[in-house]
Amino acid sequence: MSERRTQILEAAVRVIAQDGVRGLRIPKLATEAGVSTALIYYHFSDRAGILRAALDHINQRARQYTRPALAGSDDPRTRVERMLLLELQDDEGIRLNSIAWGELRASATFHPDLREPLQASTGAWNADVEALVRQARDNGSVAGDVDPAAAAERLTALVEGLSERWHSGSLTLGRARRLLTQAIVLELRP
Amino acid sequence: MSERRTQILEAAVRVIAQDGVRGLRIPKLATEAGVSTALIYYHFSDRAGILRAALDHINQRARQYTRPALAGSDDPRTRVERMLLLELQDDEGIRLNSIAWGELRASATFHPDLREPLQASTGAWNADVEALVRQARDNGSVAGDVDPAAAAERLTALVEGLSERWHSGSLTLGRARRLLTQAIVLELRP
Repeated sequence: MSERRTQILEAAVRVIAQDGVRGLRIPKLATEAGVSTALIYYHFSDRAGILRAALDHINQRARQYTRPALAGSDDPRTRVERMLLLELQDDEGIRLNSIAWGELRASATFHPDLREPLQASTGAWNADVEALVRQARDNGSVAGDVDPAAAAERLTALVEGLSERWHSGSLTLGRARRLLTQAIVLELRP
Repeated sequence: MSERRTQILEAAVRVIAQDGVRGLRIPKLATEAGVSTALIYYHFSDRAGILRAALDHINQRARQYTRPALAGSDDPRTRVERMLLLELQDDEGIRLNSIAWGELRASATFHPDLREPLQASTGAWNADVEALVRQARDNGSVAGDVDPAAAAERLTALVEGLSERWHSGSLTLGRARRLLTQAIVLELRP
């Protein structure tokens, strides 16, 4: 991916996290990214193209920032716990990523063209968690009757629900992390 | 509450569910409610007043539509399950209510004046569920070491996470209901 393209997508995430999807206007994005509007159209064709690419970028970024935690342990159960808890942390980059993701999620209710890429990104996230839960079940650190797909889908949906409450001021980050930690214990019973 | 006030709030929920919080303009709301813009200003002073009242109205409506299910059983465990599952059903009124709630939740990230009323409404919902879980624990249908406050907060956050995925097309309603039913079993273990 070209450096300029990445630069525009990073700026798009910041703009969405600050002003919402409806606040994402091409001239504003050009200013935020420090590029011309023509370059934005060259890379993304239109506003819908930017939103789809931003969704994919947010997903890739989330994978990047969870990677170090995964590298720190070989145990799949530890890895799934770390991977999920990393979504809820006091890091400005992760917070902006999480706000932008929640905003794109909410916007898809009103913008049908966001639904398909959002479903694909959600499915990729669920599949990552499911694969770790399955490994944990296979190595015996999670009970044999745990359904990896259902546990993964519930845990990622809970991360979204808790994140939205955190960003909207209904829940502290510390409380959100404790609630998620306990949910992981309930879902992935040994 | 005056009939006209209710009429305006019902219209506000429909407009928010169709066009989002940013789509809520006073002239449009007046047309949807079939009243004058002056009457809207008389009842709510300004747009922020409408949003706060709409949030409270959505919460009251949710309590109304969960009431019949609660009346159908004396068992607190059955009641908490019914109450939560009622948020996920194929009923146009409930779907609009749920979409509007999710939209207000997402908007509060960008509109700080929504945070306090949203926190109050969320707290009231959590407290309703917590009270039922506590009763279920006291009558022995839920294990003694279940934390009613944490279980309630997690289950309502999960309802929000699953609802958003349902409304944004990442999850079918049937799958969302099954995932929630299993979560209730995990949280409220006998």
